[in-house]
Amino acid sequence: MAHEFRVWAPERERVELVLGERRLPMRPAAGGWWERAVEEAGPGTDYAYALDGGPPWPDPRSPYQPHGPHGPSRLVGHAAFPWTDAAWRGTPLPGAVLYELHVGTFSPEGTFDGVIERLPHLAELGVDAIELMPVAEFSGRRGWGYDGVSLYAPHHAYGGPDGLKRLVDACHAHGLGVVMDVVYNHLGPSGNYLPRFGPYFTGRHSTNWGDGVNFDGPGSGEVRAFVIDNALMWLRDYHCDGLRLDAVHAIADDSAAHILERLAEEVAELAAHVRRPLFLIAESDLNDPRFVRSRESGGYGLDAAWADEWHHALHAVLTGERDGYYADFGPLGLLVKALRQAWVYDGTWSPHRGRTHGRSPAGLPGHRFVVCAQNHDQVGNRARGERSGALMSEGRLRVAAALLLTAPFTPMVFQGEEWGASTPFQYFTDHEDPELGRAVSEGRRREFAAFGWEPGQVPDPQDPATFERSRLDWSEPGKEPHARLLAWHRELIALRRRLPALTDGRLGRVRAGGDEAAGLVSVERGPVLVAANLG
Amino acid sequence: MAHEFRVWAPERERVELVLGERRLPMRPAAGGWWERAVEEAGPGTDYAYALDGGPPWPDPRSPYQPHGPHGPSRLVGHAAFPWTDAAWRGTPLPGAVLYELHVGTFSPEGTFDGVIERLPHLAELGVDAIELMPVAEFSGRRGWGYDGVSLYAPHHAYGGPDGLKRLVDACHAHGLGVVMDVVYNHLGPSGNYLPRFGPYFTGRHSTNWGDGVNFDGPGSGEVRAFVIDNALMWLRDYHCDGLRLDAVHAIADDSAAHILERLAEEVAELAAHVRRPLFLIAESDLNDPRFVRSRESGGYGLDAAWADEWHHALHAVLTGERDGYYADFGPLGLLVKALRQAWVYDGTWSPHRGRTHGRSPAGLPGHRFVVCAQNHDQVGNRARGERSGALMSEGRLRVAAALLLTAPFTPMVFQGEEWGASTPFQYFTDHEDPELGRAVSEGRRREFAAFGWEPGQVPDPQDPATFERSRLDWSEPGKEPHARLLAWHRELIALRRRLPALTDGRLGRVRAGGDEAAGLVSVERGPVLVAANLG
Repeated sequence: MAHEFRVWAPERERVELVLGERRLPMRPAAGGWWERAVEEAGPGTDYAYALDGGPPWPDPRSPYQPHGPHGPSRLVGHAAFPWTDAAWRGTPLPGAVLYELHVGTFSPEGTFDGVIERLPHLAELGVDAIELMPVAEFSGRRGWGYDGVSLYAPHHAYGGPDGLKRLVDACHAHGLGVVMDVVYNHLGPSGNYLPRFGPYFTGRHSTNWGDGVNFDGPGSGEVRAFVIDNALMWLRDYHCDGLRLDAVHAIADDSAAHILERLAEEVAELAAHVRRPLFLIAESDLNDPRFVRSRESGGYGLDAAWADEWHHALHAVLTGERDGYYADFGPLGLLVKALRQAWVYDGTWSPHRGRTHGRSPAGLPGHRFVVCAQNHDQVGNRARGERSGALMSEGRLRVAAALLLTAPFTPMVFQGEEWGASTPFQYFTDHEDPELGRAVSEGRRREFAAFGWEPGQVPDPQDPATFERSRLDWSEPGKEPHARLLAWHRELIALRRRLPALTDGRLGRVRAGGDEAAGLVSVERGPVLVAANLG
Repeated sequence: MAHEFRVWAPERERVELVLGERRLPMRPAAGGWWERAVEEAGPGTDYAYALDGGPPWPDPRSPYQPHGPHGPSRLVGHAAFPWTDAAWRGTPLPGAVLYELHVGTFSPEGTFDGVIERLPHLAELGVDAIELMPVAEFSGRRGWGYDGVSLYAPHHAYGGPDGLKRLVDACHAHGLGVVMDVVYNHLGPSGNYLPRFGPYFTGRHSTNWGDGVNFDGPGSGEVRAFVIDNALMWLRDYHCDGLRLDAVHAIADDSAAHILERLAEEVAELAAHVRRPLFLIAESDLNDPRFVRSRESGGYGLDAAWADEWHHALHAVLTGERDGYYADFGPLGLLVKALRQAWVYDGTWSPHRGRTHGRSPAGLPGHRFVVCAQNHDQVGNRARGERSGALMSEGRLRVAAALLLTAPFTPMVFQGEEWGASTPFQYFTDHEDPELGRAVSEGRRREFAAFGWEPGQVPDPQDPATFERSRLDWSEPGKEPHARLLAWHRELIALRRRLPALTDGRLGRVRAGGDEAAGLVSVERGPVLVAANLG
């Protein structure tokens, strides 16, 4: 056994490797790096770093935080895992149906192994890949994952690195790909030690979460490498098939070569090395084709972007809701536009934004737009996290599923949607710092008070019951009305697989129409006509 | 059993379906099509069409010509084949090593089944996909395949449709993809019945082979569909993974949507339907990036193009040859340029052409260029079809292999090259029409007389011995010096698989240099330096 510890801490005078009680001085190397080889260290060794004689802090690139984000880091031997997926050759994004799931609430176990138990359900459903909400180590045992702070470490409460590998391996055995949701636009509020090590953040850009990640200021070279190496790790060492990049509109980068473009380039070359398709999906509400245009035509070359407006246009029609950003939706004509080109705002006036928004996606194939009728955000960011099943009739749920699964885009289903789960998906956290926990709970109540909610009606994110309520109830899919809704989803996905016209992404060939008075919409694609009565 | 016969014959007054002695009138349908349903017809039924009371001719879309291109057509039930490759998820082109082979001479059997016997050799070699020289039915039993006339029918002498399916299925079982070479720029000189059925050719464009295929004149809609449906058939019904499009510079199309662009679009949508990567490779000597640029940036969106200049630059340096098109090559600096960007002529003056040639490939990834040190054309179009082994030392063969298999492009190996086969690959034909046979033989002699060859030194294409001489000798790979050259190729391919830098296609990162006086070239790619002594 032997390991060379390396850490980037360019502004420090002294860095020590902390192994148990021992503090071993590290040797400065080029570019602000510090190094120290240790003979007796290897997979399983716990360690930390001390900067300028301070307390031990976890490694920014820690592969495992067995005791949470504040504890020591643990070395992992990626090569040792007994992979059984040598025959897996990947799953291309075009034509795929994605399935978003949250490891903590998907199964009773709330772990990677718990997900494995349910893979036969997903294989029978017919989806092509699961998309895991972020699993990078975050504060506490319960959370959506967008508060991740140790970006290289699969969450210890989910099963850590080996648990994730078992899950990916099992997915591949079931013919399912794995998309990992990764957050490169901010870090969580608790356990973010990065700023102590180096200029990972910059005041030059501000985001909803504070200072932006430093992709273009002094020292940004190593920050960019930190992100790129992280992305490659999931794809290479964890055998993931794609990444979903959270909130790319909050990734500010004035470099001539945008970090997303560079990332796409690196991933393309890794794909050539591992000889299977690897893809990148952006979450963006900018309606800017640049993200998904090919690099040679001046784009960033990402493979797809979430197009939430498809959801909003449908949701507003099916529920009549007009609050918040739904104010921009409602008319059937906007749904028809979404059915045709995913983006509703393509340079047109957005009343909610008070400005024109977006740009035409013309010329791009539909596969580059991920659409959904529900997702973690659209469900979970409601005050009480109600799913569509609580808001509309079974008939309307069926209409939503039909429009989704016959769309010329890349459809995504949210866990439990396939059987109209009656469990909500609420916002939950588990911050150990009581101050932070209180702040989050109060913030949530305040946010929804603005919409007219009584404080008592808004579930407390910190309350374990909020998390428990959000867990799927696996007795439902066998019972009516859930069973017939599940059968409906299975049939639609099988139909999508059978009819080439349904996965045809040529948007120029989509003919969509609607009749506001009669409440009818229709989509014609080659020999297939999908007609829905929303009346 | 029941089958609906359909044939396009827009300028005919009367079309009959010929079943044995029976002639059944067909019913005219929209767009120049003729139809006839026959209850007792199905897979295995032989048939032909008679136009305006004339003799029976084979179906332009015949799936099988069991007695050659002039005989009756036979129905094939694609669905009936017992495929075993359900787990095959395709093979992406980036990062692949291709292996070109000719079914007739690759094995002693000269059939699809004969190739199957040798697949373990290819799997051990480590290549990713075989590229079959054209298999569409051509006149006679022996031929390179570029004289195909029944474009939907795998050659009967190779084993017909079922034989090809067995081969593709076996390839997939061995982890090998299959690329099919297809010829859409001309038809062979014997057995081309297409012009009798409709306006498949046009005098508006002329090619080396006479009138061009009608991709843009009156009636071209059905001709385009004929080609697109053919391409989709290989990929869908024969489970092929890619196509190599012969001589696309001879595909003239003034349509606003070039047939190659449309083809790429259709193939992309088929890929979304079958959920595996499908790719298109163009043979082109135009050095025009348009073929391989993405469609959204104004290109045709093909996945790669042959870049023969890489071969020429290397070959001229290694052999000192300067005849014919090699006149444009020789200086080490041109080889260095090829090692860096595949294309030597990128808008620069070509003495051989007497004009500037090509355009810069800057910005395109190296994967889009297929390079080789030998291929069927470069070997077989020499007067006596000598391989490089007859022209250079073993050391130079090793240099060629090393530069090829560490290139930032998509390397292709030609059958037997991996062991320095001593058998030539000569030009052979088997035209049944004695006039045509004589014309081909004489044409060949005349062609090389211009280069100073005595007629007796040029092998007669029609002589069966020419074909026999070109067959691989499978006792060679076990014997020296072949065995050690084979080991060299295996090691290089394994190295390419192991080192990510070798499959990295970012040409902007390639640093190539040369020293003419010392005869040294070097290519540096990240941590890898390849240096070759050509002195």
